[in-house]
Amino acid sequence: MIYPSDETALTRRLQKLTSILDVTKAMSAERDLDLLLPLILFEASKVVEADRCSLFILDRERNELWSKVAQGAKKEIRLPVGSGIAGQVAATGSPINIPDAYADERFNRSFDTSSGYRTQTILCVPMRDATGEVTGVIQALNKRGGRIFDAEDEELLLALGAQAAGAIENALLHEEINKLFEGFVSASVVAIEARDPTTAGHSGRVADLTVGLAEALEHVATGSYAMTRFTPTELQELRYASLLHDFGKVGVREPVLVKAEKLYPHEMEMLRSRFQLARKDLQLQSYKRRLATVKLRGEKAIPEIDGEEEARLTEELKRLDEVFEFLLTCNRPTVLAQGGFERLSELRKLSFTDSRDQVQPLLLENEIRSLSIARGTLSPEERKEIESHVEHTYRFLSQIPWTRTLRRVPEIAYAHHEKLDGTGYPRAIPSKTIPVQSKMMAISDIFDALTASDRPYKKAVPYTLAVDILKKEASAGQLDNELLTVFIEAEVPKKVLGTFK
Amino acid sequence: MIYPSDETALTRRLQKLTSILDVTKAMSAERDLDLLLPLILFEASKVVEADRCSLFILDRERNELWSKVAQGAKKEIRLPVGSGIAGQVAATGSPINIPDAYADERFNRSFDTSSGYRTQTILCVPMRDATGEVTGVIQALNKRGGRIFDAEDEELLLALGAQAAGAIENALLHEEINKLFEGFVSASVVAIEARDPTTAGHSGRVADLTVGLAEALEHVATGSYAMTRFTPTELQELRYASLLHDFGKVGVREPVLVKAEKLYPHEMEMLRSRFQLARKDLQLQSYKRRLATVKLRGEKAIPEIDGEEEARLTEELKRLDEVFEFLLTCNRPTVLAQGGFERLSELRKLSFTDSRDQVQPLLLENEIRSLSIARGTLSPEERKEIESHVEHTYRFLSQIPWTRTLRRVPEIAYAHHEKLDGTGYPRAIPSKTIPVQSKMMAISDIFDALTASDRPYKKAVPYTLAVDILKKEASAGQLDNELLTVFIEAEVPKKVLGTFK
Repeated sequence: MIYPSDETALTRRLQKLTSILDVTKAMSAERDLDLLLPLILFEASKVVEADRCSLFILDRERNELWSKVAQGAKKEIRLPVGSGIAGQVAATGSPINIPDAYADERFNRSFDTSSGYRTQTILCVPMRDATGEVTGVIQALNKRGGRIFDAEDEELLLALGAQAAGAIENALLHEEINKLFEGFVSASVVAIEARDPTTAGHSGRVADLTVGLAEALEHVATGSYAMTRFTPTELQELRYASLLHDFGKVGVREPVLVKAEKLYPHEMEMLRSRFQLARKDLQLQSYKRRLATVKLRGEKAIPEIDGEEEARLTEELKRLDEVFEFLLTCNRPTVLAQGGFERLSELRKLSFTDSRDQVQPLLLENEIRSLSIARGTLSPEERKEIESHVEHTYRFLSQIPWTRTLRRVPEIAYAHHEKLDGTGYPRAIPSKTIPVQSKMMAISDIFDALTASDRPYKKAVPYTLAVDILKKEASAGQLDNELLTVFIEAEVPKKVLGTFK
Repeated sequence: MIYPSDETALTRRLQKLTSILDVTKAMSAERDLDLLLPLILFEASKVVEADRCSLFILDRERNELWSKVAQGAKKEIRLPVGSGIAGQVAATGSPINIPDAYADERFNRSFDTSSGYRTQTILCVPMRDATGEVTGVIQALNKRGGRIFDAEDEELLLALGAQAAGAIENALLHEEINKLFEGFVSASVVAIEARDPTTAGHSGRVADLTVGLAEALEHVATGSYAMTRFTPTELQELRYASLLHDFGKVGVREPVLVKAEKLYPHEMEMLRSRFQLARKDLQLQSYKRRLATVKLRGEKAIPEIDGEEEARLTEELKRLDEVFEFLLTCNRPTVLAQGGFERLSELRKLSFTDSRDQVQPLLLENEIRSLSIARGTLSPEERKEIESHVEHTYRFLSQIPWTRTLRRVPEIAYAHHEKLDGTGYPRAIPSKTIPVQSKMMAISDIFDALTASDRPYKKAVPYTLAVDILKKEASAGQLDNELLTVFIEAEVPKKVLGTFK
């Protein structure tokens, strides 16, 4: 560095270096590239007293310069390295200082033509990282007061550029790792959801709906949530908690996850096969009886015996088939018909003789239990297994070393099935200990479970009916009524997911 | 800032500020805290001409200062905020400048006593981030030449500290996000592995073994890998590829993943049940025949008929039971016995009459196909489904926006089941297009699959036998022999996973 020799110049230079140091501090704290780049341009303009500045970042893989923000320009610009003034600076690593743009053949007037700006002086310097590699270019236009850029400007802009290079690299890296993390989280959620085709895309939609509701709270000026506002990092925390709320389903067995009827398909097959055996047994018993009766009544009675036995067998087979038809009805995921439970219990008495002359029950205890499920298809144990996904989710999320700003992710996801009246699961905690984020997530979760598009075993509920069901749950004291009102009035689902039928 | 008034002082100050700017550039590029902190201390000592410096970072949650590197100290030190000189500076945010430590009651001589160092002058200043918050403290000891620290030192150390604060914050954040990402990846791998209890911990061990092998290549001076060396970021890339190589198993159905015999348990149940029905059918046919014969031969022949039929039935039932016993043998995951395939095929002809007088095959085509599996328990379709995990892994990993240094993760994982002779899957690519990383992973993968500890359906293979099997695969031209030699000679498994039986 060349130092000025007179005191005034020295002091001015000191002031400038001091201000570069200050800017560096501010730059290193700004990890959002969309805010960092304007900050650098603003400070660069100040340091070299330029009318405006632009900044180009070098994309080594494509050998191009790109810019998000040339002051005055709107969208991303891409230039090949080597072309134009900025491209030459990037290629050679040497600054270019042009005192009169229109007298210099390297200058491309088309930018001025299209923007209406009038370029006079240009100072363009490389940005170099700590290892000395060129990572971009800063270009200053029109030194104030009609002056031209001097050697000191060049030196200062180089110094600022070097600091900016570090800050930009950090911001890019930060952005990259965040994208990597978010990409990994989303992809693994999709992979896990694929195990249960009825829930495909559910977690992503719940994340969008919950964050949408949180943002809608912005406009609430009265009531319990008048003061509730979420910062960008809190919204990010909420997003991850929502995206991951069902991650624990990876710990639930697939057949339970997708159970469509009260008996599993192979259980029904076994039942059907046992009824075949029982039919065969009735037939065998009938023939055994015929033979025994012939011994008693003689061969001349055979036609009569056959007649009686055929009638009896037909009747017995019919009754057996009716029982099986009844069981098929019980197996459906509908509510068990009046008296059904008692009839099932009666059937416990039925038996048949197997092929080794052992008397066996026609219905197994576990089959009676499953077919007696009053509502839905899950036994209490299976319901517990499904519900255990919340514990799995919590255990999974608790192992992860969340950053400070994301540290409540496990806790928020943990409470998404809790109810305000303390009847939820897994902990059945009361309203005051349920995080507001979880209360919002509960609304989105139920809404999406109801409205998600048709699947073989699951009909989608229309928007208005879904809203009615949610309202009923809120009136019953299970969902937060104020949050639900915002969810409906701000039309969060329509805003976030588009139209509903 | 106060500026000196004479030219020499101004120039010196300019030089110092310039050097702070240079250091800042170097600091912002250093994201490894263990390297960044010594760098800061070294530069701080230079700027204020101190004999040594130490740096404390503020832990707001615990209201403590902590230090990884006080120059001269070895391990982490923790101090409560408010106590001692550094603690006071952190509490008040004001610098402390002590010209004679032993004459100052705030000075704690115990550090000197234990270290044998003799503290004379102390300059301790806060580090402040861009928002002005105190984030730590820098302490300089013993100004060189027996002088005392002056106001300019204070100012410069504050300036350096402010820059250091930004760099430290970036490094901490970088470390935090990396830990978060790694923690999430590891936890989700564990969650997915839990679906198949025989593979618990497999991915982690493969990662350790593969990275261990890559590091062992360091010492290879001859042969094809004499020039193969992995940078720390390449090792990280290899670690993630190894950790995630089986992630796609989430896309394989559980029953296939854990299939222990040639028929699934419920298929065997159905088969058993069909044999019951066939037994019952033999009994029924026998009684039908008896009745028919009585009609022909008269009731006096009944005892004789019964005798003949009982003998015939017993023989028929015995033959049927033998067939079932044979099928049970076929069902085991052992190699099918000589002639077994032909006998199974013969059984295709067997039939029985069901309870509705329909003739049914005793063995279904798919049962014959499954029981005819020559080796192991998987049908060609099921083997394909298991093998499809590599495609699932690749598709999963390809969706993820890897950072530049991790961009080959999908490609490395994709080739872990390829063989050098082009007989691997899913692409059956030849040796020259298989990344060396995948060749290393193939060795670790097979080694761990063989030696992983006993499970109900899977016996662990002893170390020496596993090595023999690997050597055989290498001789057959499937595994890389040179890599395998390093794996064995450098004792990678023992080094990485501990002792083997």
